[in-house]
Amino acid sequence: MYKAGIAGATGYTGFELVQMIQRHPQLEVAWVTSENSAGKTFSEVHAAPWDYPLISLQEGMARAGEVDVVFLCLPHTASIEPVRAFQATGVHVVDLSADFRLADPAAYQRWYGVPHTAPDLLPQFVYGLCEINRAQIAGARLIANPGCYPTSVNLGLYPLAKAGWLSDQVIVDSKSGVSGAGRQTKLQYSFVEANENLTPYNVGVRHRHIAEMEQVLNRVNGQHTHRFLFSPHLLPVNRGILSTMYVSVPQGVTEQMIRDLYAETYAGEPFIHLLPAGQFASLRHTAYTNRCAVSITSADPMQPDGPDYIIVATLDNLIKGASGQAIQNFNLSVGIDETLGLL
Amino acid sequence: MYKAGIAGATGYTGFELVQMIQRHPQLEVAWVTSENSAGKTFSEVHAAPWDYPLISLQEGMARAGEVDVVFLCLPHTASIEPVRAFQATGVHVVDLSADFRLADPAAYQRWYGVPHTAPDLLPQFVYGLCEINRAQIAGARLIANPGCYPTSVNLGLYPLAKAGWLSDQVIVDSKSGVSGAGRQTKLQYSFVEANENLTPYNVGVRHRHIAEMEQVLNRVNGQHTHRFLFSPHLLPVNRGILSTMYVSVPQGVTEQMIRDLYAETYAGEPFIHLLPAGQFASLRHTAYTNRCAVSITSADPMQPDGPDYIIVATLDNLIKGASGQAIQNFNLSVGIDETLGLL
Amino acid sequence: MYKAGIAGATGYTGFELVQMIQRHPQLEVAWVTSENSAGKTFSEVHAAPWDYPLISLQEGMARAGEVDVVFLCLPHTASIEPVRAFQATGVHVVDLSADFRLADPAAYQRWYGVPHTAPDLLPQFVYGLCEINRAQIAGARLIANPGCYPTSVNLGLYPLAKAGWLSDQVIVDSKSGVSGAGRQTKLQYSFVEANENLTPYNVGVRHRHIAEMEQVLNRVNGQHTHRFLFSPHLLPVNRGILSTMYVSVPQGVTEQMIRDLYAETYAGEPFIHLLPAGQFASLRHTAYTNRCAVSITSADPMQPDGPDYIIVATLDNLIKGASGQAIQNFNLSVGIDETLGLL
Amino acid sequence: MYKAGIAGATGYTGFELVQMIQRHPQLEVAWVTSENSAGKTFSEVHAAPWDYPLISLQEGMARAGEVDVVFLCLPHTASIEPVRAFQATGVHVVDLSADFRLADPAAYQRWYGVPHTAPDLLPQFVYGLCEINRAQIAGARLIANPGCYPTSVNLGLYPLAKAGWLSDQVIVDSKSGVSGAGRQTKLQYSFVEANENLTPYNVGVRHRHIAEMEQVLNRVNGQHTHRFLFSPHLLPVNRGILSTMYVSVPQGVTEQMIRDLYAETYAGEPFIHLLPAGQFASLRHTAYTNRCAVSITSADPMQPDGPDYIIVATLDNLIKGASGQAIQNFNLSVGIDETLGLL
Repeated sequence: MYKAGIAGATGYTGFELVQMIQRHPQLEVAWVTSENSAGKTFSEVHAAPWDYPLISLQEGMARAGEVDVVFLCLPHTASIEPVRAFQATGVHVVDLSADFRLADPAAYQRWYGVPHTAPDLLPQFVYGLCEINRAQIAGARLIANPGCYPTSVNLGLYPLAKAGWLSDQVIVDSKSGVSGAGRQTKLQYSFVEANENLTPYNVGVRHRHIAEMEQVLNRVNGQHTHRFLFSPHLLPVNRGILSTMYVSVPQGVTEQMIRDLYAETYAGEPFIHLLPAGQFASLRHTAYTNRCAVSITSADPMQPDGPDYIIVATLDNLIKGASGQAIQNFNLSVGIDETLGLL
Repeated sequence: MYKAGIAGATGYTGFELVQMIQRHPQLEVAWVTSENSAGKTFSEVHAAPWDYPLISLQEGMARAGEVDVVFLCLPHTASIEPVRAFQATGVHVVDLSADFRLADPAAYQRWYGVPHTAPDLLPQFVYGLCEINRAQIAGARLIANPGCYPTSVNLGLYPLAKAGWLSDQVIVDSKSGVSGAGRQTKLQYSFVEANENLTPYNVGVRHRHIAEMEQVLNRVNGQHTHRFLFSPHLLPVNRGILSTMYVSVPQGVTEQMIRDLYAETYAGEPFIHLLPAGQFASLRHTAYTNRCAVSITSADPMQPDGPDYIIVATLDNLIKGASGQAIQNFNLSVGIDETLGLL
Repeated sequence: MYKAGIAGATGYTGFELVQMIQRHPQLEVAWVTSENSAGKTFSEVHAAPWDYPLISLQEGMARAGEVDVVFLCLPHTASIEPVRAFQATGVHVVDLSADFRLADPAAYQRWYGVPHTAPDLLPQFVYGLCEINRAQIAGARLIANPGCYPTSVNLGLYPLAKAGWLSDQVIVDSKSGVSGAGRQTKLQYSFVEANENLTPYNVGVRHRHIAEMEQVLNRVNGQHTHRFLFSPHLLPVNRGILSTMYVSVPQGVTEQMIRDLYAETYAGEPFIHLLPAGQFASLRHTAYTNRCAVSITSADPMQPDGPDYIIVATLDNLIKGASGQAIQNFNLSVGIDETLGLL
Repeated sequence: MYKAGIAGATGYTGFELVQMIQRHPQLEVAWVTSENSAGKTFSEVHAAPWDYPLISLQEGMARAGEVDVVFLCLPHTASIEPVRAFQATGVHVVDLSADFRLADPAAYQRWYGVPHTAPDLLPQFVYGLCEINRAQIAGARLIANPGCYPTSVNLGLYPLAKAGWLSDQVIVDSKSGVSGAGRQTKLQYSFVEANENLTPYNVGVRHRHIAEMEQVLNRVNGQHTHRFLFSPHLLPVNRGILSTMYVSVPQGVTEQMIRDLYAETYAGEPFIHLLPAGQFASLRHTAYTNRCAVSITSADPMQPDGPDYIIVATLDNLIKGASGQAIQNFNLSVGIDETLGLL
């Protein structure tokens, strides 16, 4: 049995991790931390029966020796110091924050507005997008878990980008359930404001999540500078992301060629669900699972061979977009069955 | 045209009032106040196009002369001083807080845990439960607008109590939409916590809202001491209250007698919707309206003549349970058509 | 008082019409029809207290003489014969179906797949998009009420198209509440399937609703052939449409010029709500109202002068997208205050 | 590995079973049947990637030899013939219908209105309420899986009944998510009708589900005739049941005695979550789990020792109320770890 420490367990991703670890046959909870609720128990802050005492992050760091892996569910910038502390002890670290996702510290500064305070650690991190970086993740000690929006976009467009078929401009119209905002109490996330509503926010080419799209899709096949026009919307559901992506492919690329490309790229992937022609990926396809569902549709059914296609990708933002992918990364990194605890 | 001041317009009841006044042919907005947002406009705090400047309550009190009526949408205890100020100017006051609902200051202290600081004003207030107190409301200057839960219970049980048929113990299982908690940011009212959930809270015989049930139903026919066992639940809808009430009637009282009693008691009432046998009142019957729907069902269809009945009453907590009834009270008090602005 | 007949009153648009007519000071219900529920009353098929008897469409046609206006809430192709019957009697007809929206019968056949069986009537119809066709609607006898999706797109893009600034290709990513599908019982519209879900459907350049976008936006300033790539999604809310539209404007056109254009175009419009810079139109801005809210955002806040913009338009599909606009059309056609019954 | 056949896999309970079997380390799917969709695959009727061919029930019966256990997810009366066929082959049968829940065929006729056509099989069936009948379930071949409502009531009241402390009359106010009605297309279960709504139905003392309450709670300690006044409500959530139960205990029974009784009765139960004083069971405590959560609250906090208490019990109707309990029954019957596949 491997033992896990979870730093930041009062939020939704921490909760999902603890819950998924109950199911995992080779992983168990050693300790859980909470900044605001240290001293209480897990069952006092979540509607669940597990009585784990919530300890401080400081105490968690002192107890690094008890664990094989630490999952960090902390806000961005808050991960940097704990990561440094834990990596010094040699435990596996899966960081769910944004702090180590971007390999280039200049990109971090550009998108997050603050300088990166641990650029020396960046080269040691692997970007944990399992389906694409599997080889590097195997055996890695330090893993940056991808963001939820970029995971949907990167998995949805990776085959096109790898084949060199992705258009220069990509419009990504995304919709996310409210848990994507974390477990917080801002008015816009209150029930009465969000329910029976739909709200765009931070639309355009400057949303931080674009950084991870560029990092993955611009480099997968030579160097490109795709321009992502990204419009997220707050959706009145608890969980789930659906990204509707508008792309054009080069002349001569047919719908069948695209379908074959996706089928080949994702052959044998346990968590990629490619929809057949005529079906659309919906939130329902992936809610409460570690799957990413992808559908491919020609914009013009009378001219199915393009050039315009609508790619839809969905995932559960708390699972494949966060804690499930974190477990998948852990499984890969220690070399056990990638799907353990995730079915 | 009558002119209205609205004190506390950033909450949901204030919003509903402003919206209903747009529709009211003889009432218009003069000023609106906000404690936290003075200096902004109404359209900056609500998703609506009206540009009313938000002024301080202090300024509102200074501008009492500009209005015919003031609607106070303030938390309990916060209404007392403004009420004193406004009543001194002679304007009509409809107070939506709990501060002047209980005629007996000892009851206020018992249920709210603080002494009433303006007991001298209490005798001047009329309890604005329109269908029951219509005669006293006509011409009244000071009106205490009833609470949302008690309005559903009092309208649902009033005919039985008046006839002396109400059992000593009444179980009231109520369910309320989240807007009943006001426009606030506590974690339990956030979307992810409240959605796909149902939570009982403050159940039993000590909930404050019982005070208004006792005040109305214990006195309508001699003096009684009905015991109300009241269990509210937080329901994942924006608006609406549904109270399921379990009563026993005296031997000899048949279902038809009860139906006749309700029909007679509420004959001609514009906002009471009595459901026929076999139908149940649902939130849908009253959402976005000033109506209260009531259904009567024998607990035993094989023995329809009792003694156990299930009375269900529903209303929209923001309209009939708050702002709509406030307008109805205003209409009654100045002697114009009771339904103006409310259809 | 004008008198209205409503054909097809068991659906959601029929319900909204009956409800709005209660509020309208110069309009009242004369009769209501229902194909499947003739013989019942309105209150038996809707959670509302109005006891109007439901008569057959045949009987409604026989009673054309009792009414000043007929609102037809019938499925497409089912309106054609009743329209012919009613227009022969001289009453005003507001047809909420798709049958008379397209002026060109060839377009009808192309998009709906069946020949139009009353092409002689088409020239007598006015397309009832009030803000754009107001002059023609005034005094018109026969009005085709626009579709809900196209109303959001046409009102959202009309100023750009009129100015000649609309790009050749427009991507429209729309999301609609479930009532847009009508009051029906297909599995995909059942609660468990649609709740906590989001589903794209019929995406691309061949959706029927594109016909009305082309009819309006291609002709408003010379002849154009804009290509609309339209992707509707089924949204887990009862009502509301939000269209996120991706456009490029010609070089030299700045954000301020666009804002000025919209402000000027829609100056004095009672039902257009232009959001200020930095705010996004959301469903909340228009739910349960006859308004259309529009927001304009540069895709790149660092280069606010384009060329890419995201226009968001929202409306309540049952009100501004159907029954509210139908009342607005009626008000315009008979020359009474356009906003009666609609505030 | 044990092999399972699932009869009736297009509904929600069938879907949950297939999904839970993916996670079960000693159980796998052999075949799945569907009355209306035979010939299609599982992934064509559910938003999930599993390609199991859907076969007819007839074919399933012919392939009884391939399986160790059959789960029957069929409507009531439809289970009787397949049960006879399967039991003849010696496979384990877990019947999720109501057909074999009532030991007494007269009770079946009384509550279901039709005579039981296989009374000879009734004595061979064990009522699969795991926490209460564990000993009998171990080794059983034929198991009747309990109903969802009664499971919440029986688990919530069992300790009181066993101790002889349950009052003669019990009021049960239950609320259920829409999936409790099955995967069907009636208008009242459509999204627009059920969303933002709450509807009581079939209230009183004659609801079929009362039969299982009587069978369990009237016999657990001598013979009693508790009268259950049961009011179910349709709740706008996908899944979950919450039963609010109003009971009186005998004089001298204190709150602490009740808490001790429940703690003792359910000590070591893996799926019973007893809430501490001051907390209420909510849907959130059990959604997507096989748990039943129970809270105990005195009706009068000033007189905590009674006699009136409010017991709240919640569970996920599709899991603990159906498919999860079915797996738990299977695990118990073959003698493997009761929690396999259920965490």
